[in-house]
Amino acid sequence: MNTEELGACLDNVRKTSPLVHCITNYVTVNDCANAVLAIGASPIMSDEPDDVEDITSICNGLDLNIGTLNRRSIEGMNHAAAKAASLGHAIVLDPVGAGASKLRTETAQQLLDTYHPQLVRGNMSEIRTLGGASSSTRGVDASAADVATGENLAEAAAFVKSLAVAWKCTVAVTGAIDIVSDGMRTCAIRNGVSMMGRITGTGCMLSAIAPAFLVAHDDALEAAVAAVAAMGLAGQIAGGRMGELDGNGSFRTYLLDALYNMTGEKLAAGALVQKVA
Amino acid sequence: MNTEELGACLDNVRKTSPLVHCITNYVTVNDCANAVLAIGASPIMSDEPDDVEDITSICNGLDLNIGTLNRRSIEGMNHAAAKAASLGHAIVLDPVGAGASKLRTETAQQLLDTYHPQLVRGNMSEIRTLGGASSSTRGVDASAADVATGENLAEAAAFVKSLAVAWKCTVAVTGAIDIVSDGMRTCAIRNGVSMMGRITGTGCMLSAIAPAFLVAHDDALEAAVAAVAAMGLAGQIAGGRMGELDGNGSFRTYLLDALYNMTGEKLAAGALVQKVA
Amino acid sequence: MNTEELGACLDNVRKTSPLVHCITNYVTVNDCANAVLAIGASPIMSDEPDDVEDITSICNGLDLNIGTLNRRSIEGMNHAAAKAASLGHAIVLDPVGAGASKLRTETAQQLLDTYHPQLVRGNMSEIRTLGGASSSTRGVDASAADVATGENLAEAAAFVKSLAVAWKCTVAVTGAIDIVSDGMRTCAIRNGVSMMGRITGTGCMLSAIAPAFLVAHDDALEAAVAAVAAMGLAGQIAGGRMGELDGNGSFRTYLLDALYNMTGEKLAAGALVQKVA
Repeated sequence: MNTEELGACLDNVRKTSPLVHCITNYVTVNDCANAVLAIGASPIMSDEPDDVEDITSICNGLDLNIGTLNRRSIEGMNHAAAKAASLGHAIVLDPVGAGASKLRTETAQQLLDTYHPQLVRGNMSEIRTLGGASSSTRGVDASAADVATGENLAEAAAFVKSLAVAWKCTVAVTGAIDIVSDGMRTCAIRNGVSMMGRITGTGCMLSAIAPAFLVAHDDALEAAVAAVAAMGLAGQIAGGRMGELDGNGSFRTYLLDALYNMTGEKLAAGALVQKVA
Repeated sequence: MNTEELGACLDNVRKTSPLVHCITNYVTVNDCANAVLAIGASPIMSDEPDDVEDITSICNGLDLNIGTLNRRSIEGMNHAAAKAASLGHAIVLDPVGAGASKLRTETAQQLLDTYHPQLVRGNMSEIRTLGGASSSTRGVDASAADVATGENLAEAAAFVKSLAVAWKCTVAVTGAIDIVSDGMRTCAIRNGVSMMGRITGTGCMLSAIAPAFLVAHDDALEAAVAAVAAMGLAGQIAGGRMGELDGNGSFRTYLLDALYNMTGEKLAAGALVQKVA
Repeated sequence: MNTEELGACLDNVRKTSPLVHCITNYVTVNDCANAVLAIGASPIMSDEPDDVEDITSICNGLDLNIGTLNRRSIEGMNHAAAKAASLGHAIVLDPVGAGASKLRTETAQQLLDTYHPQLVRGNMSEIRTLGGASSSTRGVDASAADVATGENLAEAAAFVKSLAVAWKCTVAVTGAIDIVSDGMRTCAIRNGVSMMGRITGTGCMLSAIAPAFLVAHDDALEAAVAAVAAMGLAGQIAGGRMGELDGNGSFRTYLLDALYNMTGEKLAAGALVQKVA
């Protein structure tokens, strides 16, 4: 893949500043809002069933993140997704904790089946659960056995590709190596640092910024890869700033800073993308 | 206006440490709590209808912020506001997203009409919506056409003043230039930096600290101007700390730091306030 | 107490990485999640009654924090606590704002009476309220009259000890001097700095990391003292990093950083623990 396309996608996010409706968990919602602002788009959060249709109507994309879901927010997600789908908006589904509880698994499955998101982004345990494969989650983190590594990459890529075909959308599985597939093209992205797993919310932030990339770029696979690579590269830059006394508090700040200062040129130069299938 | 009065107001916040009951959105609530602590007051958050009357009774002021409103929190806002009004507490209304959805517009209108807040603070799009003027919102941000600038300042000031008269309260419209009016006196405040729009929550933080200023100072117009100028000046100081690698992550931290270190003396020296009507 | 045991407890948290289910308030929940990650454990947040039993079943410990409680989350806390108790999981109760409202006082009392938490952690006003002693709360902060100081330490320690006996659990009262008792042994911990009261959430963070310490160490008193001392020592380290322009924004970041970099060796060397009864 030509990484200049990824840079052009980010540049276009900044140029068009899409409005992203986020229905997301209350743990990382502030970071999600600041991440959306950092990449040059605008966030609006609303999960009340009586509010979401109006809100999603004035937006360009929708992020559905099921962390800390509740009966009311599930109803809100359904109302918003139905409206967004009817308007042709980009929908991103983040099945946080699918596999960790029956409610999360069933909610993610129902949202996936009913509204046909353009992008599903999760860790391998969550995606395996949704794909009907056996999986062992560790709460909201992927279990070690599920993570894509250099050794099992071909197999993992084939699995992600098969889900993209089955779900007729783009699937992004993030981990040590990220895999993104639209069923025809499958890429491995080797940006990112392990420190990203030591703060809460890097996955949520990625899912929150992804709709902006999908809105700003016609090719959904490239848009998803651009978002994944931008987040990973920001993590590398943040990691490079870490001083001796710094920990996950500072890393969180540096990560937003790096997203804020990310340019299309930097992304094109730093994205580590490999076609794998 | 004598800016020494503004400094005296802040000094009195720190001396008396008012307790502020905040019913606010879950996106920026942590920043709101830390902002209230930064200026020397104490926050307490509670939105459950069965809890809010007791909580507001032990507080001195109430912040009603309708971002991420839901049916339960709207009920909570009404219970809290009724109790606060009966106790003569300072009430601040922040109509986040009024104009962006029917529920937000109607809820803000109902709270305004029923409980007569001492201060209404919003961006120009939200305030225009509440004032029945035509407006084009951009989610929770003001539309460009609505923002007060040097060119349309006299007209904008007259409009804000007319609402203060109609609503019998103080109105603060924040933007590139902030306008505050109590219907008799109208001020433009030229503190602040554009970077404040690149993090989520500067408006929410202002509305959360405002009740403390209203409690600590008899003159509501001066108290509102002091809060607005303190937040703007903190933004300028935060902006001045920004290094090459910093972005909105660091700016958010610096903003709280600057509020924390703001003194009455600094505020009196740095407030850029002009009487405009 | 041998502080090397405290260090060994922290080392064991990092080695075993317990999964902690947190039902906590939306004000400080992000800091709680990052604090749990900072000490090497894993957090998962869930408060929906239909979700919590599955979630708590895959976890090792449970944090019940009643800040911003609502009818739904109270129901969620009860479902989660019943399941956690049946599984023998460590339960920590943080009665945020007990005494400030009838709902908070009654909810904390009911959770305490029904589920027999291993640890109750609060400020002195909250704990006095739960213990049936007269108290004057100041919102979610302890009133000055209630805080343990050098002068009233013996009396305060005897009171905390009596509650530990009555409740058949470990009780941790944090303040200028922290007191922890299991009814047989009572310790005063003199770590911490006053700046910790100028950010929101230090108490919540402590209650969120405490289950991990209880899971990782057989002796509940030592585990509770280790968590209290680790948080206090992190506060001291964070305070030592404060520059001239820094305020509570930076302090919050430094606190998480210090937790992240805390080792068993540092904790053993820096814990200021004294047996007082």
